[in-house]
Amino acid sequence: MKDNQGVDPEASLENYLWHQIPISSAMGVQVELATPTRVVIKAPLSNNINHKQTVFGGSLHAVATLACWSLLQVNLLQLKHDNVQIVIASSEIKYLAPVTTDFKAECSMPETSDWKKFIKMLEKKGKARLQLTAHIYQQNQLCVDFSGVFVAIRKNGL
Amino acid sequence: MKDNQGVDPEASLENYLWHQIPISSAMGVQVELATPTRVVIKAPLSNNINHKQTVFGGSLHAVATLACWSLLQVNLLQLKHDNVQIVIASSEIKYLAPVTTDFKAECSMPETSDWKKFIKMLEKKGKARLQLTAHIYQQNQLCVDFSGVFVAIRKNGL
Repeated sequence: MKDNQGVDPEASLENYLWHQIPISSAMGVQVELATPTRVVIKAPLSNNINHKQTVFGGSLHAVATLACWSLLQVNLLQLKHDNVQIVIASSEIKYLAPVTTDFKAECSMPETSDWKKFIKMLEKKGKARLQLTAHIYQQNQLCVDFSGVFVAIRKNGL
Repeated sequence: MKDNQGVDPEASLENYLWHQIPISSAMGVQVELATPTRVVIKAPLSNNINHKQTVFGGSLHAVATLACWSLLQVNLLQLKHDNVQIVIASSEIKYLAPVTTDFKAECSMPETSDWKKFIKMLEKKGKARLQLTAHIYQQNQLCVDFSGVFVAIRKNGL
């Protein structure tokens, strides 16, 4: 869907991911939704299948990571923080049930207070960290619970 | 290197990964070492590059996962537990420094007491869990610290 500047944020993000992180293209990643409040990234079973005919845990983790990174990127661009680099510092993932079909990783904005603290710190110090979560459901069952700590760093320092 | 039955365990494992988990082929995964005490899996920067010209965190996690899974698989096959399925239950990863070159994930056997407990439980209950770690170094610097909990389940139940 195009925004009020005629840009399709989903196509733009998908194009960025495919070109800048080419393994996302091999995974068949597609951006279903890219708004500041929610990002949904989907991928097919076929590209990510394992020996048990379910989705490989590494692919589930990768797509969840991309969903969180993208939510942060979309928000920082909207706030004109286009000189900020985002890196992942750590993550935890729980594989609660196997994923046996094409799948979607969903990441939503964290608590407003956490977000405000993050932006305040980024603007003051040029560096801030934020915890984001992503989930993968299959038929309303939570299959993957992902949590990552991301660090935003202003490129031109303080 | 061929074992005493004329089998090359590295080529055999690599072939298995490429065919059973095809995204590992897209990642350019190669098995450097596949012994019961240590597994080393390598992958090139080029297939796994990100927008910062470093290795994508999702790929680092995936190759570390494969190294641990493979160590467990190699050991279970050696013990003739060929009717056991291995699934990953959870993992944690710390990205301590960016990886800027081709890389290797290394997984070694856990403490002997943990391994013995795991095998005893698997033989008794048909199901057991084991924590394994994998590391990725670049020029002697630890860049990735991965820990995963794997569950082995005997296919024909108890």
